[in-house]
Amino acid sequence: MDSYAATLARMPGLRAAIEQHPESYRVLTGERPTGRLHLGHYFGTIRERVRLQETGVETFVILADYQVITDRDSAGDVRGNVYGAVLDYLAAGLDPTSTTIFTHSAVPALNQLLLPFLSLVTEAELHRNPTVKAELAASGRTLSGLLLTYPVHQAADILFCKGNLVPVGKDNLPHVEITRTIARRFNERYGDVFPEPDSLVTETPELAGLDGRKMSKSYGNAIALGMTADETADAIRRAPTDSERVITYDPANRPGVSGLLATAAVVLGHTPEEIADDVGGAGAGALKRLTTEAVNEFLADHRARRAALTIADAAAVLREGNEHAQSVANDTLDEVRAAMGMTY
Amino acid sequence: MDSYAATLARMPGLRAAIEQHPESYRVLTGERPTGRLHLGHYFGTIRERVRLQETGVETFVILADYQVITDRDSAGDVRGNVYGAVLDYLAAGLDPTSTTIFTHSAVPALNQLLLPFLSLVTEAELHRNPTVKAELAASGRTLSGLLLTYPVHQAADILFCKGNLVPVGKDNLPHVEITRTIARRFNERYGDVFPEPDSLVTETPELAGLDGRKMSKSYGNAIALGMTADETADAIRRAPTDSERVITYDPANRPGVSGLLATAAVVLGHTPEEIADDVGGAGAGALKRLTTEAVNEFLADHRARRAALTIADAAAVLREGNEHAQSVANDTLDEVRAAMGMTY
Repeated sequence: MDSYAATLARMPGLRAAIEQHPESYRVLTGERPTGRLHLGHYFGTIRERVRLQETGVETFVILADYQVITDRDSAGDVRGNVYGAVLDYLAAGLDPTSTTIFTHSAVPALNQLLLPFLSLVTEAELHRNPTVKAELAASGRTLSGLLLTYPVHQAADILFCKGNLVPVGKDNLPHVEITRTIARRFNERYGDVFPEPDSLVTETPELAGLDGRKMSKSYGNAIALGMTADETADAIRRAPTDSERVITYDPANRPGVSGLLATAAVVLGHTPEEIADDVGGAGAGALKRLTTEAVNEFLADHRARRAALTIADAAAVLREGNEHAQSVANDTLDEVRAAMGMTY
Repeated sequence: MDSYAATLARMPGLRAAIEQHPESYRVLTGERPTGRLHLGHYFGTIRERVRLQETGVETFVILADYQVITDRDSAGDVRGNVYGAVLDYLAAGLDPTSTTIFTHSAVPALNQLLLPFLSLVTEAELHRNPTVKAELAASGRTLSGLLLTYPVHQAADILFCKGNLVPVGKDNLPHVEITRTIARRFNERYGDVFPEPDSLVTETPELAGLDGRKMSKSYGNAIALGMTADETADAIRRAPTDSERVITYDPANRPGVSGLLATAAVVLGHTPEEIADDVGGAGAGALKRLTTEAVNEFLADHRARRAALTIADAAAVLREGNEHAQSVANDTLDEVRAAMGMTY
């Protein structure tokens, strides 16, 4: 059994333990605010966060604004993206009275953990990290100090609140692994301060975008949660299809049609093949109408809740979340300083 | 003219400009608290700091406690070393009402500057840094993330207070160079926030220790400023010499004798050759007595002032210094966040 299979095999037991003792877990999760949140985020992570919150697990959601520049030269409209994400979180059901939503840049004490943590990993270990390799290749840029040290930043993000549970996809397992290594080495060297976090692997299959590639804001093939119904209809209308009248699910040869089928399927809770059978010979136009209607119906409540909120609401949530994160980070940093003998 | 010669050629003009407009300069200087401060520190840096303070230049002195672990596994007695350094600073004439003395670990906002700064340098640039190379070779260890990113930490140390003047020896010029690069790139990308600091090269020749090698606490050949007169006499008595009766200054062939001559010379303000002539055929015993007396007389006032101070005095100075450094760092970080659009 390879290590991923071994990790997967542990999930049912871990999920049962979480259900039984939600108070023993603290989750760290979040994302880089590089654009608007879309359906891929909803099914990939946001839904899981709401579930964990409902189980009674304390959750910290980080908007890693500094990490936006790991693979680009500008932070772009980071402010707009952060506010938009907060509005989507609230609309999706995250409750800021029990879940802490905060931005990376607002918590200096979290970032200070980089100093001791960087001393606990070698350059070679950083180079071996698959995410560093993958992002380096994808960015087509020279390796920056920020990208190279990215795994250590993620370790600080997780450990600042003593997070012991990190929801991840397969790709992000190595981040949790290096975080465990850093926690273990710190504890061995300076005394017991940090937990060694567990990965909570969510096996959501990657959601295809409107062109059949992975749904991603950078491909322009995403349906943002915050779009209006008309914008959604427009985006789906412009999606590339083919001239084959009979609709079939065939991602390799019919990426456009299959992307639409996958989107409709996920919001309707069916398989893409079932949707294809329903549409049959009615053609791409019918598929697009069906997909538009399904997505807009699925998102109607989310969008209504989102529209009832203002930027001021988002700002207020962040102010409180940042304050709480700062207080948690300061407590952890005090422990770190004491463990290292740096109290004056 | 090579770049070092060019830098040296600029020093008289820079020194004149400092004399004329001390209010235009802000100095960042400091050290890693890895042990007790010794005569090498006094003549290499501390004396220059007092001079700059007397000129009216605002000075920040950083005790880089986190950086102790760039080349070792434990911070050791970092607390004792920090307090000891503060006592030596005060005894040497640094005035905490005009000079800010602070510890690295107490200023999270300074350390947060690492995030944007790391994005502005490539891994290749970090590898080219001569200090990284030299410390890596000297430490005999695997390259850690902390040592690799050391130049960026130094840039944050300098730029957090918008330091525009950094007293350095020849070896540390590359640190100031990479700091200038980081400041320039940040300003180009996000708008004008940071100065490009100047190096103030102090051409103090390296002080030899009691065995003729560079004076260093790690060689055990140093005369700590805080030693008693008896401890000083003891250390000099144990210094290795040779059986040649006539004392001559010959660092290559007579390292022990030459180390003693250099030490006596620097505290007496003579050349080692002059001291050698004075001792002549009186032998190593006479040289040791002369050196002991000269050092103890030179340090008598320093030690008397130091003995009149308590750990509580040092702690109070650090509390105020840390508070001031935090306030300055927070202001700079606010500017950085605003420039990057990370205000919520």
